[in-house]
Amino acid sequence: VPPFRLDPRLAADCHHLGDLERASVLLMDNAQLPWLILVPHVTGEQIHTLAARERRRLCEQTDLLCPFVASFPGVERLNVATLGNVVAQLHVHIVGRHRGDYAWPGPVWGVAAQAPYAGDAVASLRAQLGVAVRAAGSALRVP
Amino acid sequence: VPPFRLDPRLAADCHHLGDLERASVLLMDNAQLPWLILVPHVTGEQIHTLAARERRRLCEQTDLLCPFVASFPGVERLNVATLGNVVAQLHVHIVGRHRGDYAWPGPVWGVAAQAPYAGDAVASLRAQLGVAVRAAGSALRVP
Repeated sequence: VPPFRLDPRLAADCHHLGDLERASVLLMDNAQLPWLILVPHVTGEQIHTLAARERRRLCEQTDLLCPFVASFPGVERLNVATLGNVVAQLHVHIVGRHRGDYAWPGPVWGVAAQAPYAGDAVASLRAQLGVAVRAAGSALRVP
Repeated sequence: VPPFRLDPRLAADCHHLGDLERASVLLMDNAQLPWLILVPHVTGEQIHTLAARERRRLCEQTDLLCPFVASFPGVERLNVATLGNVVAQLHVHIVGRHRGDYAWPGPVWGVAAQAPYAGDAVASLRAQLGVAVRAAGSALRVP
C-alpha cells in the first residue's frame, strides 16, 4: 500500500483538523459555513470501488462527523456528498447549510466564497471536534 | 408509522422505477445522465436523524444502486449526495457523470436540463435495474 498523500487542491483549500482511523478530517477554509471533508486513506477513488470494510468505515466515520456539523448554531440541513469531478481523490463533504446562506438553496460546490477562518478559530474547532469524537467513543489524532 | 408519501416535487420530476425494502427508487426524467434517487420510507429527514438500522439499510441500498449507475456507457464518476435544500424529504442522489456532460465539472443540482426520456426507455431501464438488483441478491418490486 503506498503511503497516503493528500491531493494538493484539498491541501490548499482546507485545514487539516486531524485523523480518524485511516482517514483525514479537513476543514474547508470557509468561515461562512461549517464544512468538513473526510478523506479516507484508500487507493480506490469512488465509493463503489472500495473494499466492503473500507466502505463500512467510511459510512461510520461520516456518521461520526455529521452530528458534529449539525451541532453548529443555525445549521438546518446537512449536505453530505461525494462528487470528485474536480478532485479525483475520494472525499466526502459534510456541509452545514441554512436558509439564506450564500449559496442556498443551490449546492455550495463551485460557488466562490472568500471568508477564511481568522485567528485561533481553527484550533478551537479542532479542539471541539476532538471532544465530540471522544464522546462518540473514537479518537482524533491531531497534527 | 404514517404511510409513505412521496414528495410531490420528486414525483413530478422523476419516474418511479420500483421499490426496494422500505425504499423507493426513482429515475430523474433527464435522459442526458443516468440519475437515480433513492427515497427511504422513513420519517427522519436527515441521515443523522435516522435510526441505526435505517441508516445501515440506506447505506446498503445506496451501495446496491451505485454499480448499476456506474455501469452506464461513458460514466466516469458517480456523484452521490443527500442535500435536501429544496425537497426536505430524505433522498439520496446517485448521478453518473462524465467529462463534458452538460454541467461538468459543476454539480447537476439547480442546472436546468430539458431532455425527458422518450418511448419505452423508462420501462427498459426498469427491467435492467430489476436484473441488476436480482443479481445482487435483492429484489425490486415494480409498480
